[in-house]
Amino acid sequence: MKSGRLYVLSGPSGSGKGTICKRLISQTDAALSVSMTTRAPRPTETEGVSYFFVSDEAFEKVVGEGGLLEYAEVYGRRYGTPKAPVLAHLEAGRDVILEIDIQGAMQVKRNYPEGVFVFILPPSMAELERRIKSRGADSEEQVRLRLGQALREMDWIREYDYYIINDDLDTAVAEAMAVMRAEGRKVDAGAVALIEKYRKEAEKG
Amino acid sequence: MKSGRLYVLSGPSGSGKGTICKRLISQTDAALSVSMTTRAPRPTETEGVSYFFVSDEAFEKVVGEGGLLEYAEVYGRRYGTPKAPVLAHLEAGRDVILEIDIQGAMQVKRNYPEGVFVFILPPSMAELERRIKSRGADSEEQVRLRLGQALREMDWIREYDYYIINDDLDTAVAEAMAVMRAEGRKVDAGAVALIEKYRKEAEKG
Repeated sequence: MKSGRLYVLSGPSGSGKGTICKRLISQTDAALSVSMTTRAPRPTETEGVSYFFVSDEAFEKVVGEGGLLEYAEVYGRRYGTPKAPVLAHLEAGRDVILEIDIQGAMQVKRNYPEGVFVFILPPSMAELERRIKSRGADSEEQVRLRLGQALREMDWIREYDYYIINDDLDTAVAEAMAVMRAEGRKVDAGAVALIEKYRKEAEKG
Repeated sequence: MKSGRLYVLSGPSGSGKGTICKRLISQTDAALSVSMTTRAPRPTETEGVSYFFVSDEAFEKVVGEGGLLEYAEVYGRRYGTPKAPVLAHLEAGRDVILEIDIQGAMQVKRNYPEGVFVFILPPSMAELERRIKSRGADSEEQVRLRLGQALREMDWIREYDYYIINDDLDTAVAEAMAVMRAEGRKVDAGAVALIEKYRKEAEKG
């Protein structure tokens, strides 16, 4: 059986990577990677769906066993991507989608270089600014900082395999799906095994 | 501007690569690579569309100038793929499709390793046999030889980037189009130039 592929999607805040991921999960058979965290669950969150909620000790244990594809600390709370459920999906032939910031993606790349790394870009800096402002959550100064961070993050594009410009959402999703479909057609061990099957079929026939 | 990509499609006789190529030409903006030959034009053939028809001397001159991506001799007539029109299309941002046998594809790979190499497979040896027989052009012995040749050719799949199983034609064409779309999204000089453009936009803004 063909094994699945891990698709790692990153992009600056405002690139729309989250929306693209949600659409990919609903429009393909791919599974969404679920993170592990030491923060407390919020009332609307479900264990194993929103996150795996664990204690600091449990988190530390998984780190020690090399059981995370990446991890980080944010405001004293720890977040990471458990390797085991991802590998289980891939071995069962199912693709997995992981939405993560650039720093996390670079950790994943070191720990799982077979992943397919996709960078989501805004169509322009003006549009990125408009999107960030439209959320209404940031001061002028914060918007300026976010745009600066976006530019620094985009310098990492060279480390990615594909880039998708999220101007029209439907087009961006279609491009991501084309990437997934094409990656599934790459010549790999499955292709070589198929030829072997044909050879055996011919010998019998 | 983004430059185009050269897609080289090969596969054994009966894989349906020719039909897939025709569909790709009609359903995408890609140009079909036109071969050069020393054989005489048939009444239905058009210069520059079916082939570039040239003399032995002219063919030899182009070979000497390194102007062919590949060439071969069949029954004393020479056939080759001129490099210049392919490169002109690619530089103008247009994809080019080249349908060619495995031996030719391997020559193209040496001369233009940036090409994208796609192998078309039949769904099974039984179906390949059925397709070859349905043409009614071959004796039992010839069918057997063709199947043996197909198996030897399929061993070259490792040299290709992608493989597509042509069971249902629409699916096979959709997969080839996904490959073309995904290849167009690969991180390349165009992606890096885009980030540079964003940086300049931000500096001005």
